[in-house]
Amino acid sequence: MSERPFSRPEHFHVAARPTVAEHAAVVASLVRGTLPGGSELVPLDEALGRVTVEPVASPVDLPLFRNSHMDGFAVRAADLAAAPVTLPVAAVVAATAGEPPALAPGTAIRIMTGAPVPEGADAIVPVEQVESRAETVTFAAPVAAGVFVRERGSDLRAGDELIPAGRRLASRHLAALAAAGLGEVAVRPRAHVAILTTGSELVDVGAVPRPGEIHDANAVAAAAAVVECGGVVALRGRAQDDRAVFDQLLGDAVRVADLVITSGGISQGDFEVVRESLLPRGGWVGTIAMQPGGPQALAMIDGVPVIGFPGNPVSTQLSFEAFVAPLLREHAGLPMASRTRRRLRSSIVSPAGRQQLLRARLAGDDEVEPVSGPGSHLVAALAAADAVIVVPAETTELPAAAEVEVWGL
Amino acid sequence: MSERPFSRPEHFHVAARPTVAEHAAVVASLVRGTLPGGSELVPLDEALGRVTVEPVASPVDLPLFRNSHMDGFAVRAADLAAAPVTLPVAAVVAATAGEPPALAPGTAIRIMTGAPVPEGADAIVPVEQVESRAETVTFAAPVAAGVFVRERGSDLRAGDELIPAGRRLASRHLAALAAAGLGEVAVRPRAHVAILTTGSELVDVGAVPRPGEIHDANAVAAAAAVVECGGVVALRGRAQDDRAVFDQLLGDAVRVADLVITSGGISQGDFEVVRESLLPRGGWVGTIAMQPGGPQALAMIDGVPVIGFPGNPVSTQLSFEAFVAPLLREHAGLPMASRTRRRLRSSIVSPAGRQQLLRARLAGDDEVEPVSGPGSHLVAALAAADAVIVVPAETTELPAAAEVEVWGL
Repeated sequence: MSERPFSRPEHFHVAARPTVAEHAAVVASLVRGTLPGGSELVPLDEALGRVTVEPVASPVDLPLFRNSHMDGFAVRAADLAAAPVTLPVAAVVAATAGEPPALAPGTAIRIMTGAPVPEGADAIVPVEQVESRAETVTFAAPVAAGVFVRERGSDLRAGDELIPAGRRLASRHLAALAAAGLGEVAVRPRAHVAILTTGSELVDVGAVPRPGEIHDANAVAAAAAVVECGGVVALRGRAQDDRAVFDQLLGDAVRVADLVITSGGISQGDFEVVRESLLPRGGWVGTIAMQPGGPQALAMIDGVPVIGFPGNPVSTQLSFEAFVAPLLREHAGLPMASRTRRRLRSSIVSPAGRQQLLRARLAGDDEVEPVSGPGSHLVAALAAADAVIVVPAETTELPAAAEVEVWGL
Repeated sequence: MSERPFSRPEHFHVAARPTVAEHAAVVASLVRGTLPGGSELVPLDEALGRVTVEPVASPVDLPLFRNSHMDGFAVRAADLAAAPVTLPVAAVVAATAGEPPALAPGTAIRIMTGAPVPEGADAIVPVEQVESRAETVTFAAPVAAGVFVRERGSDLRAGDELIPAGRRLASRHLAALAAAGLGEVAVRPRAHVAILTTGSELVDVGAVPRPGEIHDANAVAAAAAVVECGGVVALRGRAQDDRAVFDQLLGDAVRVADLVITSGGISQGDFEVVRESLLPRGGWVGTIAMQPGGPQALAMIDGVPVIGFPGNPVSTQLSFEAFVAPLLREHAGLPMASRTRRRLRSSIVSPAGRQQLLRARLAGDDEVEPVSGPGSHLVAALAAADAVIVVPAETTELPAAAEVEVWGL
């Protein structure tokens, strides 16, 4: 794993504790430059929910050809002017491959919905409105020219915009692309994200932990969060606290991913594998003014950003939400998670110097209620929350009814 | 394909044209009884976006054991009462498998975040707050019992509800399930839907149509719509207008699907393969008071509902939205598409006797604007719409600013 030149962002050197905004800006500057640009051609069957990169023009007129809106009879409107009138049925035209015969004056042609309208015909009379015998058809009333004829290009002309840029493709968009014969569509490429969890205490979710062990919730949650934000999990690995294993996984990760996320191994313990791996390569490991999620790490390894989160599942999840989710959503063209202002249902106190991310529930139309304590181990409490209250670092208390920033989960 | 007893719903026999509401009720009565009930156990990695069937209780206390919130020193608070005090460091406890030694009075134990708190210890002093030497540690201030100790079960007790019933699983829910060691979760089963398109004029989307042929947009759109509504496409087939092929596909479909959707083959033409197949088996083929989407068909084949839509892509898509999407969303536990009331931006006229589904765009906070004409071939216009205005069958004109029912797309 060779080191590419890496210009350390500003706060890599400052002694002061970076603010959440400062840290977010550094993460954004690292990640925005490395996520894949351009577009990816995907088959329609894989395009649901993907986002177009540029406007898609129709290569054809829609409808492709002048066709019948109804099951009925193709006629010249002029022939029915003196209705009632009975005309011989000269042919039957089905909706299938083939050029229909031209309509001779003074005749009718039986025609099915979607079938090409014979040359010479300028109206369709529905079968329900005629009296039809073996070889003749009787029209009770005149018909206006153009009735029940779908003109070629009446939906869209070749070259016209079929789908605009930035459209998240739903079934109706795929229908239009399919109708135009476009089997593939250019969409934003997905970010490939590697997830490396660390910690000797971690065991697989299905396993029975021995005393001192816990289940590796971060691997599951981070993978799901990446998918929620339109990304793809390129690799998932667990290094326990083994530096050689971590370095090997990190090497694999930067080869296959646009972005690497790690959990654990960056605080003040004796076995901090991420810290030990990243620091010698010019990485930054420090503490930002956020709780939970104070310990953070950043590095560029082989041109791929490595974003290190703390090991507690709540810290990792809220760090992802604060720093990575907005960038992945932006990249994927997905809507941002809601960021609103609401009024507190109850008063809160908050430690000075760190932006608090309080788990909360939305209440009423414009209120929000803190739930559970601030502990970064309260993974069930986070699952029960549907929002996060952001308490600025300098704020130490807020009365009920105070307006606060709220992130929707 | 044997016929099971099939009690024809009311409007199968009535001569009058069923209303949209009547038809929807019949479809619902057929489909609700046949979509799979119960639950399906899926691995967490496949559970994102699925919906829980019943409350999930945690099988364990969370945290699993009493552990340290910080990297620091485990102490008896009583030993620090007369701080400053210096204690010998008796052991180091990492976050890994193993029972820690008990803390002897008058000693401290170095401890890492997440490591089990030694028996006898009742507080953790963070490493940043001590002066630590090789074999001793000096505490400058007393500490309260309980500080930075995460008690077993302080997040959740074994048996407590971890995830409620009916929750659509996001990453934070999967994190909680993983933390509790649950590798699988019981979710609502997905509806398996077969999609059969008919029409000799249809060719694959990638193919170049000959004169008279068009691309099979319905297959693409219906498959995507099923997925949007939480279902799975169990089978997709195209029968052209060949009755034997259709019957074969239908036989396959009812073996693998909970619901079969067909497009085309049910109007007044000479080659109506769905009509010909369903009528002898007790099916209903008729016209309802809706536009687009007037022709409709229903049958029960081998206990599986067959819902027949017209062949025009717009008719099929809006029929799906009107009759099938709400049932699939309900079954999957997904939110319903929005149904609101808005004010018309411009006046409209509408034919009597049929509920119109007008393609429209939402405008401003509470307005809606019709776009394009009513033609069922306007597939590009539907793609450009983001809403449908519902004009009741008896309404023939509405002035600007009139309030109308609007479906969000």
